[in-house]
Amino acid sequence: MNYPWPESGTPLDQVATPMPVIDEDRLAANIARVQTYCDQHGKAFRPHIKTHKIVAVARQQVEAGAVGLNCQKVTEAEVFADAGFDDILITYNILGPAKLARLKALNERIARLAVVADSEITLAGLASTFDADRPLTVLVECDTGAKRCGVQTPEAAVALAEKIASAPGLRFGGIMTYPAVGGAVEVETFMARTMTLLSDKGIDCPVRSSGGSPDLFAAHLVPSATEHRAGTYVYNDRSMVRAGHCTVDDLAMHILATVVSRPAADRAVLDCGSKALTSDLLGFTDYGSIHGFEGARIVSLSEEHAVVDLSGCAEPFPQIGTMVKVVPNHTCVVTNLFDRMVFHRDGIVTRVENVDARGTVW
Amino acid sequence: MNYPWPESGTPLDQVATPMPVIDEDRLAANIARVQTYCDQHGKAFRPHIKTHKIVAVARQQVEAGAVGLNCQKVTEAEVFADAGFDDILITYNILGPAKLARLKALNERIARLAVVADSEITLAGLASTFDADRPLTVLVECDTGAKRCGVQTPEAAVALAEKIASAPGLRFGGIMTYPAVGGAVEVETFMARTMTLLSDKGIDCPVRSSGGSPDLFAAHLVPSATEHRAGTYVYNDRSMVRAGHCTVDDLAMHILATVVSRPAADRAVLDCGSKALTSDLLGFTDYGSIHGFEGARIVSLSEEHAVVDLSGCAEPFPQIGTMVKVVPNHTCVVTNLFDRMVFHRDGIVTRVENVDARGTVW
Repeated sequence: MNYPWPESGTPLDQVATPMPVIDEDRLAANIARVQTYCDQHGKAFRPHIKTHKIVAVARQQVEAGAVGLNCQKVTEAEVFADAGFDDILITYNILGPAKLARLKALNERIARLAVVADSEITLAGLASTFDADRPLTVLVECDTGAKRCGVQTPEAAVALAEKIASAPGLRFGGIMTYPAVGGAVEVETFMARTMTLLSDKGIDCPVRSSGGSPDLFAAHLVPSATEHRAGTYVYNDRSMVRAGHCTVDDLAMHILATVVSRPAADRAVLDCGSKALTSDLLGFTDYGSIHGFEGARIVSLSEEHAVVDLSGCAEPFPQIGTMVKVVPNHTCVVTNLFDRMVFHRDGIVTRVENVDARGTVW
Repeated sequence: MNYPWPESGTPLDQVATPMPVIDEDRLAANIARVQTYCDQHGKAFRPHIKTHKIVAVARQQVEAGAVGLNCQKVTEAEVFADAGFDDILITYNILGPAKLARLKALNERIARLAVVADSEITLAGLASTFDADRPLTVLVECDTGAKRCGVQTPEAAVALAEKIASAPGLRFGGIMTYPAVGGAVEVETFMARTMTLLSDKGIDCPVRSSGGSPDLFAAHLVPSATEHRAGTYVYNDRSMVRAGHCTVDDLAMHILATVVSRPAADRAVLDCGSKALTSDLLGFTDYGSIHGFEGARIVSLSEEHAVVDLSGCAEPFPQIGTMVKVVPNHTCVVTNLFDRMVFHRDGIVTRVENVDARGTVW
């Protein structure tokens, strides 16, 4: 039984709220657009499944031409390995006996698994776990300006590459970065310099993996990159529109919500709180936008309430009981709140998929 | 099989991260402390299960003396009704045919169910759904300063109470509010005035339900309230310490995390991102505190990374691979990210419970 999820064939206006819903045609168009761009520029495309966490959507991405998948942790990768995906890059430092043991088991059963590392400590754990009979491919993670993980200089990248290459159970696969938005020049400079230094030492650098959705269509400005990774593009969200990555017509995810209260002339309350939208602001000063009511501002969230300030809203706001469509600031985190995801075309539910990797812990 | 959750008996330092964990003794002390306070002040206590969403924890609360449960939506209440709880207040405007049908079914099978309403539209839906043979108890939601839902004046509360009382399928149960923090005087004034006006019309007001965790121990300043509702107190969090509701020794929830990167002298990265902590700031400027490293600040979150600024940290920060304990800004939203919750005593896992109402949609 599907309860409490809608059946296929249900009109969207009969779906109980709050409910995220995915437009099939926009989803397919987003997948095709980005794959075509990467094909045209000779880049391999590796989607980050964190945005959807759904096996069926990953299949759509691979069928469109993606080279493999990007995951962020071992338990997330296992879900997709279980479903038959055989090329997975985990862009994370894997540490600790439990995770290393599961990583080794993963490496035994899929054709192409790789991880990243940015420290000798991480490498030591990997090197002591893997053997020459079934080595693990490791890329060096480089900080090219995002100031999150990653070695700080090309020289440091080379030092780790040498350590990887000298470990019997590891294979140096190349370099990886998660760039700052708009950081194409920094990425290219870092990658090119690193490749030169590696070449000087006779070390091959087959994969140069860059990423990001907001400036995805600037990926061709990083000619040294062999592949591009991106997650958010598949559904898009308010931050992607703001970044110029897409238009409002490319927004595949909306959260259907109901007006549950109109306590005052300038206030409405919707039933999509932080447990449907999350509190991710991503630089916005409100928690999402409401389709058709651009001046209405979701100014605060409780867990199950969205308080809407109508003072700047030109259109008369709907009455209690009316459904509205909310555009989330950040789609990836909405995915992780729901056990299943509803898809639709022409206002009718087409399918309801399990969010297969929802809540994968480590 | 429990994978990927730890087995009972596992030492906490062997738990794979990120992982929220609940201290059994602090949990029991929080439950007892608040129940004792309410008993001493002649208030019924009604815990809001949103903070834990676990049947076993709700049982602990009821065994300690709670009068029943507070839920925020129909599908959440159903989980607890299925588990045998027979007194549930849903503090939400229930709208739409799907929710009303499930609400009616709930009312058939539990002894004491009540909802709230703050508009005629909501009442019209309820009145057309329920019959005199099994009426639904409805409380009027009053806005006493929090500016979320609720009627704006005692007079408006009375008008709705009259409508409820005149509907064959409804029974007026009293009034309810979710106050502004520190708003005891406003709550008392509104409630007392409403009770006077109702009494003038010969309408009994048996339940006067107030709520909130931050100033829970000021509940006795609202003598007109018959019961108090609160959720967060059961686990507590950084915002509860800031509010003066509790001390750091009453923090039952921590998120175990591992240092996964030390890219620079003043930066560390932990593996607890927004998919473990959420982005809830609740007025803080950082995303959680790290036990033992008070000057370290979690300044930004990605979905699986916490970037820590060490520039103000007096103690040497741990090396890569070391476990730390993070105090979340807001515990209630962490609960909704995980399928199961780990409990411990004296550094050993005691049990792992299903988060029974995780992801209840509507």
